[in-house]
Amino acid sequence: MYSLKEFKEVFDPVLEKFLADRIEEYLTQTSDPFIKEFVQYSKRLTLSGGKRIRPYIAYVMYVAMGGKDIENAIKLFISLEIVHMFALIHDDVMDKGNTRHGVPTIHHFVSKKLKDAKRSGDTENNSEAQAILVGDLFFSWAMEIFLDNRNFPIENITLAHDYFYKMVDEVILGQMLDIDITTREKAEEELITEKTRLKTSRYTFVRPMEIGASLANTTHNMDDFCESLGTKLGIAFQMQDDLLDIIGDPKVLEKAVLRDIADHQHTFFTNFILERGTLEQKDTLLQYLGKELNENQQQEVIKIFSDSGAIENGKKMILQNLEDAKVIISRSSLGDEYKQICYDLIKVMQARQS
Amino acid sequence: MYSLKEFKEVFDPVLEKFLADRIEEYLTQTSDPFIKEFVQYSKRLTLSGGKRIRPYIAYVMYVAMGGKDIENAIKLFISLEIVHMFALIHDDVMDKGNTRHGVPTIHHFVSKKLKDAKRSGDTENNSEAQAILVGDLFFSWAMEIFLDNRNFPIENITLAHDYFYKMVDEVILGQMLDIDITTREKAEEELITEKTRLKTSRYTFVRPMEIGASLANTTHNMDDFCESLGTKLGIAFQMQDDLLDIIGDPKVLEKAVLRDIADHQHTFFTNFILERGTLEQKDTLLQYLGKELNENQQQEVIKIFSDSGAIENGKKMILQNLEDAKVIISRSSLGDEYKQICYDLIKVMQARQS
Repeated sequence: MYSLKEFKEVFDPVLEKFLADRIEEYLTQTSDPFIKEFVQYSKRLTLSGGKRIRPYIAYVMYVAMGGKDIENAIKLFISLEIVHMFALIHDDVMDKGNTRHGVPTIHHFVSKKLKDAKRSGDTENNSEAQAILVGDLFFSWAMEIFLDNRNFPIENITLAHDYFYKMVDEVILGQMLDIDITTREKAEEELITEKTRLKTSRYTFVRPMEIGASLANTTHNMDDFCESLGTKLGIAFQMQDDLLDIIGDPKVLEKAVLRDIADHQHTFFTNFILERGTLEQKDTLLQYLGKELNENQQQEVIKIFSDSGAIENGKKMILQNLEDAKVIISRSSLGDEYKQICYDLIKVMQARQS
Repeated sequence: MYSLKEFKEVFDPVLEKFLADRIEEYLTQTSDPFIKEFVQYSKRLTLSGGKRIRPYIAYVMYVAMGGKDIENAIKLFISLEIVHMFALIHDDVMDKGNTRHGVPTIHHFVSKKLKDAKRSGDTENNSEAQAILVGDLFFSWAMEIFLDNRNFPIENITLAHDYFYKMVDEVILGQMLDIDITTREKAEEELITEKTRLKTSRYTFVRPMEIGASLANTTHNMDDFCESLGTKLGIAFQMQDDLLDIIGDPKVLEKAVLRDIADHQHTFFTNFILERGTLEQKDTLLQYLGKELNENQQQEVIKIFSDSGAIENGKKMILQNLEDAKVIISRSSLGDEYKQICYDLIKVMQARQS
């Protein structure tokens, strides 16, 4: 059984080969050197970073449910990373992000190339269009992987594929909610919970677990276990993300902090201030929400997160959800060896700095 | 055997039911009334227009290859219209189109709602993001239809699904080329031919034909027939589109004309002027390319298309390709009854005004 770190070392060469082959096949149909360049670049972007947490979660459940064909299972779990890249590429277009994994995003890469070549037209618009299309391509390839994989019984593939489609519905809906929340003056905690369920619990934990479990075993229904464990892990994971956006190290994160503030995003942390902060803390937060802050303002807003108790409360909630997750694991029907794997995963989560 | 018009009457209620059910299922997962509204709107947009030519082409080949289960075949061909809506929704984001089928595009609809509700943030950006997500959703649903359809032998579904993925690769690549061409001062005829092959011949004819044929019959390989016939029909269809963009009736088209000029698009028609027009005609065209023209300029540029011989030459090429298509049909192994259906389709194409 691989640790997350070992898994990435096994997984990435398979991912690289998949993309190299698929891109090569795709590009035989065009003579346009410019298109070849940015489609090739999408491979580099994919491999420059990422924790591979979703395929790893699927792998853990696959093994825990008695799956033995690790090699072919990993080939199928590539789809989870490819669909994740699709989501990230489209996200980067939506929030105009210029870097991802420490390298230029697709649209930023295309934009520079168009400028260098002195091409005509609206360069920003055209480079965003190409990035949307690269995202579409990754989405299509992710789903195609299920079709091409004939190393498992058709019932297993069909069931796993079905969970995959549920996951896609959920992450798209979660992202719709995410964007809708940024346009609101205030978001009810219920809406933030709904977003977290769809965009993190289901997408990062519940569905990958179900995909892994169903690929190994179609007779043992693990839906309730996946849902209850994945919900807890998802809340903890999302709150860690939100917390790292406040107190994380930009170098380790490979991205700037306080993006949620700049993006006018409401989180459990901002809601804590809006509900329990002093009048002054609320006013300052509302004034800064949706703005790019300078160094002093950043320090000021971090202090508010700290002084209001939002950070302390958040840390407590993260810990509580991870403890709840441990209880769910301990009460499950998994063998002791597999319980230990799940506990190890929680340890990895507790230690995460990015 | 339905005519295209009769087919639409049978097809649209099935399409409407699919979307109504799928959207209802999707929206059970959210309490956000705003998201409910624009996702529901995507059904109205889909049903406000469109010729259903791609599912019809698949249907014709399905019948021609001996397919008998029309009802379930049509349920599968819904995927061709849903994937087409995905492409149109993303296209509308890319070229910032405000209307489609005579009603507001998704992003335009969302944008108005956000403004009416006085929501904060970058309204244009947020509404484009929601439209990208609705497009993603349609894409996912289109592919899911193959998974859900268990009314055909698995070999037929798998083969049809395989052609479907090829088609998706091709239309995405065709759209990448389309956009890349708009950024170029001049596009070689070869590149325009490549774009037409991918974006029109393969997408609108070859692959839908193969999907229909393989759903009916997996032993009779019709790839060569589909490729040769679809190529001819695709060139004719694309050139008709380009021609209607010059001399079509905006009311019948349900869109403005001379969009290719405004979008800095190179077509067989613009290339004809750039290669064979007078110096003055070339200069005027180059000056207008990429610009929104006023009434006088529009008349001027239409006159150039006419005086240079681009329109006459284009009409000749359309006719020639349709004649070639008839020869391919006459020499095929199809029964006489099915040959007649194909000839009828060409008649419909010849008469098209939109």
